[in-house]
Amino acid sequence: MIAVVWHNLEMQSERLEYEDKLKEFVEIPSISAEPERRGDIERLADAAIAAIREFGGAAEKVSTPGNPVVVGRFGAFPDRPTVTIYNHLDVQPANEPQWKRAPFVFHKQNGRYFGRGTTDDKGPALAALFGTRAAMQRKTPVNVQLIWELEEEIGSPNFEHFMKASAARLGTDSVVVSDTIWTKRGRPAIAYGLRGLAPFRLVLETGAKDVHSGTTGGVARNPIGELCQVIAECYDAKTGEVKIPGFYAGVLKPTRSDMAGFLASGFTTKEFQRAHELKRIRSSSAEEAVRHIWAYPTFEVHGIVGGYTGPGVKTAIAPIAEAKISMRLVPNQDPAKVLRLVRDFIRKRNPDVQMIPESFLKPFLGPKSGPYADAAREAMRTAFGREPAWVREGGSIGAVVTMQKYLKAPIVFLGLSLPEHGYHAPNENFDWEQASGGIKMFARYLELLSAMGRGK
Amino acid sequence: MIAVVWHNLEMQSERLEYEDKLKEFVEIPSISAEPERRGDIERLADAAIAAIREFGGAAEKVSTPGNPVVVGRFGAFPDRPTVTIYNHLDVQPANEPQWKRAPFVFHKQNGRYFGRGTTDDKGPALAALFGTRAAMQRKTPVNVQLIWELEEEIGSPNFEHFMKASAARLGTDSVVVSDTIWTKRGRPAIAYGLRGLAPFRLVLETGAKDVHSGTTGGVARNPIGELCQVIAECYDAKTGEVKIPGFYAGVLKPTRSDMAGFLASGFTTKEFQRAHELKRIRSSSAEEAVRHIWAYPTFEVHGIVGGYTGPGVKTAIAPIAEAKISMRLVPNQDPAKVLRLVRDFIRKRNPDVQMIPESFLKPFLGPKSGPYADAAREAMRTAFGREPAWVREGGSIGAVVTMQKYLKAPIVFLGLSLPEHGYHAPNENFDWEQASGGIKMFARYLELLSAMGRGK
Repeated sequence: MIAVVWHNLEMQSERLEYEDKLKEFVEIPSISAEPERRGDIERLADAAIAAIREFGGAAEKVSTPGNPVVVGRFGAFPDRPTVTIYNHLDVQPANEPQWKRAPFVFHKQNGRYFGRGTTDDKGPALAALFGTRAAMQRKTPVNVQLIWELEEEIGSPNFEHFMKASAARLGTDSVVVSDTIWTKRGRPAIAYGLRGLAPFRLVLETGAKDVHSGTTGGVARNPIGELCQVIAECYDAKTGEVKIPGFYAGVLKPTRSDMAGFLASGFTTKEFQRAHELKRIRSSSAEEAVRHIWAYPTFEVHGIVGGYTGPGVKTAIAPIAEAKISMRLVPNQDPAKVLRLVRDFIRKRNPDVQMIPESFLKPFLGPKSGPYADAAREAMRTAFGREPAWVREGGSIGAVVTMQKYLKAPIVFLGLSLPEHGYHAPNENFDWEQASGGIKMFARYLELLSAMGRGK
Repeated sequence: MIAVVWHNLEMQSERLEYEDKLKEFVEIPSISAEPERRGDIERLADAAIAAIREFGGAAEKVSTPGNPVVVGRFGAFPDRPTVTIYNHLDVQPANEPQWKRAPFVFHKQNGRYFGRGTTDDKGPALAALFGTRAAMQRKTPVNVQLIWELEEEIGSPNFEHFMKASAARLGTDSVVVSDTIWTKRGRPAIAYGLRGLAPFRLVLETGAKDVHSGTTGGVARNPIGELCQVIAECYDAKTGEVKIPGFYAGVLKPTRSDMAGFLASGFTTKEFQRAHELKRIRSSSAEEAVRHIWAYPTFEVHGIVGGYTGPGVKTAIAPIAEAKISMRLVPNQDPAKVLRLVRDFIRKRNPDVQMIPESFLKPFLGPKSGPYADAAREAMRTAFGREPAWVREGGSIGAVVTMQKYLKAPIVFLGLSLPEHGYHAPNENFDWEQASGGIKMFARYLELLSAMGRGK
């Protein structure tokens, strides 16, 4: 088979069209976290449907109890495989004062595209659409199904509802998820694992009102102090090590080959620290760092609610406190089991502390070899001219676990974002280098898959 | 000497007059914590001056960089002692939704007086004023100096300024502080000690912005987790025991006689728990409880700032966190020394944590015997018909330590408030039983002191 060929003139006209479409999508502020944007969400869903139809596909807006999901379809080859490509079109809020320009006005500068949603995930979604059209124009005998979610940034609360209701109509041979980040420009990377997420709250109520720390202090219990104590018993915050017996029991240790892949991504702690503006980090070793972000679980306190938070010190003892905690879990940890471990551990130490788990996400691990991994590797190499590194994601993508459950098909990650694109950050951007590479990558991937049988 | 005699008719007319004055004072919302009440503070100072003058005294409003202090003077007996009686006329805010009536509308019901400031400390201030007038009317040869502060509820930020500037004109032979609470109605109590207060903040900055706990968790430091850890290293929140070596070194252990006095106050953990609406407390033994509130130091976390505090769990790692902490210290702990101990302890455990002390208050311990203690005991017994218990206050009164420093005179506490009066709580109240007893107590105390020489 010969790789899809691209002519310069063709790429130039693609570029203008891509920029037009990205501008259109970015300028609809589809912030899923803000209920008053519900109208914009619908507008964007309609624009997405129009774009898919314009590109020759069929499209429908599937309702859920929350935001709709856009489903697009290309190709009519009953005996050829169907590839589902997942992206999301909702975006993070953009209230950061550091935005240099209006976040929802598309701005083009030296091949870079600025605006909320450019890299996460509208730019990659459009690369998938353009790559699909290219494959279709070249008569690649493959079926493509686009799933564009509009609630990813708020934790995909209705994606399972959508999947459950539509799974029968969404039959697919494999899935591509396009919402991940490389470690470095010029170093293509394919993720093959995600951490899971197990958030919970600890609540301790010791009284009914603020009491005076002079009049009662010494006898009154202090719920904030006790939660601090419980948290410190759960983990060593300095090293990050979890002290709950059995917590690490299920952890699948990264192999040598895993570690080699992680390091091939070009990860350096210096760049990591700069990208995330961290004053100090726990380790300056790249090896330790990638192991801890991609292959080891965490215990994290996100906030403690209930006490005084104004200026200075107010000497009241709070009647109730709540700690916001989450754990990132890795293959093969079972979130339900780990949550039980934590609950039992805390109950033994402080039986008055209530543990309230929120809904969790399982970790994910895909293969680094086999037909889909090989096709992904080859597509990325063709598009970006370099062998991709096999890495993992420290984050969790709820939709992945849900699709795995309902579509029962292999999942590969073909992401296009870079650290400098500012995921969830002010001045978010994307660029033509990644977009054009992405279009080629998707077209090539589809071409490679068309040659495979169904259901491999 | 014969105790001051009170006739029924006289007490009835006192009562009406007392209620009128209390109404007038309570209905001026002198909330020192709310800058927009500055006008009310001045209005109350003027009303206080008018009341003192109306009662035959001289009065002046002494300015400070903050709220003024009202100073009243009665008696002109150069060779007789001067007694200074300290009260404060500013009040706590009254925003609690539990108020059954408007907090700044005086309301009388079955001998109880409702409204913010009735018991803390306008009611006792007026009892002192009425008691002083009674002594003067009986030609008691004593000089009385009233000091009415208007910033007590915000920590007396300018009281030292006032004292420093006016100490020369405020010469006194002894001081009475009238701002303490009995443990139980019918059980008069005299405090002879206060805990000190050493507040500080712990600040830990590890980054510049919220980071994603998936993308960075495991390598990014967590300032909230690390502060929890430091706090848990400082003290065992379950028992309250401070784990910093040397912390208890200076603590003057309560003697058997101290403990007997504490228990004579009628303290029970059941009533304590009910009064403060505490679901659970650290100990159900009255003995342990009074020891821990009145004679032992504490370490208390009042709040942790910096993380997520909305609903559910947001999985961001905060870049900076601040813990609000204070210690109540007891005789003979030295706050400066203890703060250094804490700082060194924390620095060793987590050198990146910044410790920022706020201004502290030293603990106070007065004598339970000697001429002033004897007079206080006798005055209280005469007024309330029962031997008072000698107790301490778990709280701290900044003005006490300042007066001790500048006036260099013995200090006794003659308080009138009861737990059911709702200090700093909604539906604050006072009552005629305590007020009339207070008037008699002050008159009798002045009479006893008039018989003493100067400067004893």
